[in-house]
Amino acid sequence: MSLIVMKFGGSSVGSTERMQRVAKRIADYKEAGHQVVVVVSAMGDTTDDLIDQSKQLNLSPPSREMDMLLTTGEQISVALLSMTIHSIGHKAMSFTGWQAGIRTEAVHGKARITDIRPDRIINAIEEGNAVIIAGFQGMTEDGEITTLGRGGSDTTAVALAAAIKADVCEIYTDVDGIYSTDPRIVKCARKLDEISYDEMLELANLGAAVLHPRAVEYAKNYNVPLVVRSSFTQNEGTSVKEEAVMEQGIVVRGIAYDKNVARISILGVEDIPGVLAKVFGALASSGIDVDIIVQSGVQEGKADFAFTVSLGDKEKAISVVEGIRSEVPYEEVNSEENLVKVSIVGAGMVSNPGVAAKMFEALYNLGISIKMVTTSEIRLSCIIAAEPVHEVVRALHTAYGLDTAEQAFVGGPQDRR
Amino acid sequence: MSLIVMKFGGSSVGSTERMQRVAKRIADYKEAGHQVVVVVSAMGDTTDDLIDQSKQLNLSPPSREMDMLLTTGEQISVALLSMTIHSIGHKAMSFTGWQAGIRTEAVHGKARITDIRPDRIINAIEEGNAVIIAGFQGMTEDGEITTLGRGGSDTTAVALAAAIKADVCEIYTDVDGIYSTDPRIVKCARKLDEISYDEMLELANLGAAVLHPRAVEYAKNYNVPLVVRSSFTQNEGTSVKEEAVMEQGIVVRGIAYDKNVARISILGVEDIPGVLAKVFGALASSGIDVDIIVQSGVQEGKADFAFTVSLGDKEKAISVVEGIRSEVPYEEVNSEENLVKVSIVGAGMVSNPGVAAKMFEALYNLGISIKMVTTSEIRLSCIIAAEPVHEVVRALHTAYGLDTAEQAFVGGPQDRR
Repeated sequence: MSLIVMKFGGSSVGSTERMQRVAKRIADYKEAGHQVVVVVSAMGDTTDDLIDQSKQLNLSPPSREMDMLLTTGEQISVALLSMTIHSIGHKAMSFTGWQAGIRTEAVHGKARITDIRPDRIINAIEEGNAVIIAGFQGMTEDGEITTLGRGGSDTTAVALAAAIKADVCEIYTDVDGIYSTDPRIVKCARKLDEISYDEMLELANLGAAVLHPRAVEYAKNYNVPLVVRSSFTQNEGTSVKEEAVMEQGIVVRGIAYDKNVARISILGVEDIPGVLAKVFGALASSGIDVDIIVQSGVQEGKADFAFTVSLGDKEKAISVVEGIRSEVPYEEVNSEENLVKVSIVGAGMVSNPGVAAKMFEALYNLGISIKMVTTSEIRLSCIIAAEPVHEVVRALHTAYGLDTAEQAFVGGPQDRR
Repeated sequence: MSLIVMKFGGSSVGSTERMQRVAKRIADYKEAGHQVVVVVSAMGDTTDDLIDQSKQLNLSPPSREMDMLLTTGEQISVALLSMTIHSIGHKAMSFTGWQAGIRTEAVHGKARITDIRPDRIINAIEEGNAVIIAGFQGMTEDGEITTLGRGGSDTTAVALAAAIKADVCEIYTDVDGIYSTDPRIVKCARKLDEISYDEMLELANLGAAVLHPRAVEYAKNYNVPLVVRSSFTQNEGTSVKEEAVMEQGIVVRGIAYDKNVARISILGVEDIPGVLAKVFGALASSGIDVDIIVQSGVQEGKADFAFTVSLGDKEKAISVVEGIRSEVPYEEVNSEENLVKVSIVGAGMVSNPGVAAKMFEALYNLGISIKMVTTSEIRLSCIIAAEPVHEVVRALHTAYGLDTAEQAFVGGPQDRR
């Protein structure tokens, strides 16, 4: 008998048939003797519909009231899923976030979980119920309803799994698991059997949107074994854990790309002490996340440097830089879009020399120039022109020996977009 | 400055425009310097839509899960109304039932309010907010979400008004107030300026569906002044209070009718001690509400008696009576439908002889025979054949001097159905 946390996203419960399929899967676990806690998101388009309704009445509603509105989506899901489980002869009880003891910071729209008080759900489990919990939501110490922000239901599931010491936390999604790269553009992408938390974190942060980075971080911190698997098949999925077994000859685990990137360059900056601290301090206090930073050498007392931000922050970042020109004199600030960050990720990279060289060579062979580079122990990222990113990802996938043998020739030029 | 509780039903907030109209009305009160607490029902068809969704997954869902599902309807309303008030420049905060401190019995689907802990909403009022509270819902001591059953939002409003010692509780609806009878069938029905709690209770119980009896009872017990008025006009409405001023010459305040009635007759009952106790004890323990009871005189040691129940309880009542035949020997049980209970209500009846005679005379003039009669201090009800009930109500309305002069001839035969 295991204690299993299962998390289902909105598309997994988006219709009557899908809801029934999820209920059946939960019933199967119950019949096999497991204890089950289920975290559910809002059904299909519910959240978008609620947002549309709110926009008709207030274009910038207070975030407190928005949380009040949006949390109804998950409450509807859990009630309906619980009823569906009852209809096939099993006991179930649904709980909102506050009922499940999920406490958060006093922030609306993107609160972090501070604490879980699971007594009530542990009682419900021990009474033999499938326990169905609304994802994405919690309550502050003052009894205010909060939401956890994007990917919040993943985080709810992982945090609950940690709090009740579950044996495993299964994240059900519409793909079979974590792939070596986006299978929509590389047909011979391979499904990974295992991946480490750190590798998953790099991939999650790089736009492989299957698992939210905050949830992976939480799983790593509390050592919660994760499994990412499909809600539409019985396939095994991908296991995310502390140490992943490295396949023979595979150093790079996956290849990710992210088009949500803009480059800001500041040219001819006077090389006075604390320049970088001033620039990035000003950006941070404006709430702008900076990703890659590159500084070139100083010539004649002046330096150039460049950094990347998400596309949505570009204009704001430029005004921040313009705003500090009196403190940090420079000649020019400019920006560039139509870029992509391509990354290779693998825990084996640090101990295998030549991994970086292979990436640069592959890009050179495609005639692509590298605009920026950044590395971590398990990652190497290059900023390049946005096109032809799919061709680049395919070439890297082949170069690092990731293509599955049986499917290696399925992908072709007709898929390029 | 007054502290005002306003209650809006689902049709009052059923569209964007209506929601905006309600927000405007609240803003007007705030601008006039009043403190405002607003209780809202689920918008338009929301509750029915949620019930339909549940039926696709479980035809007899657990009532706990049904409460979990349905309470989202009011939560959506309060969040959207609060946003709408913000959009026109006023402070507002929405609260669920549990957040507003509304405690109920541990019963799902029709819980009674046991207690209100209003500290949190009093704080919100004092901070200058329009406080928007989800009607129809509460929480048990164990943190379970409950609903109050039919008319629950009226009860929420009245109970809150009592708990925060509001100056008045205004019930907004789609009619102008309480009428002397159903204005759909009597065109010259008069809107009452005032009515006493007791009169309102009799009318509410008799099917004048504007106010729920439980809410009126609560208002009477806690002496909460009620006003029933239209959410679509600025008209004054009807004031419901302890002692209503009697208009000159008007003894009967209103005329109600209720078609939801069936008569059960038990004939040839052996006149042994405790017969009535046995029959009505058995009915009560089966959850059947008995309304009128009539026993004829005893002849040759045998008696006939008859009682009325709601139409939905008819079959059940007959089986209960059949089930106790060994204890209470009788010759025959039969039942009758297509009946209507017509009632006249007025606090002045007790001190005005001849009120009943006038009703009997009016019915006699129409050639209608009376099947059963029952009286209280402020009410007289007759069970008669269901047709022509509209003609009967019109005749009584005229007989008791209730027709408004200016409209007395508007109603006519073409309205009869």
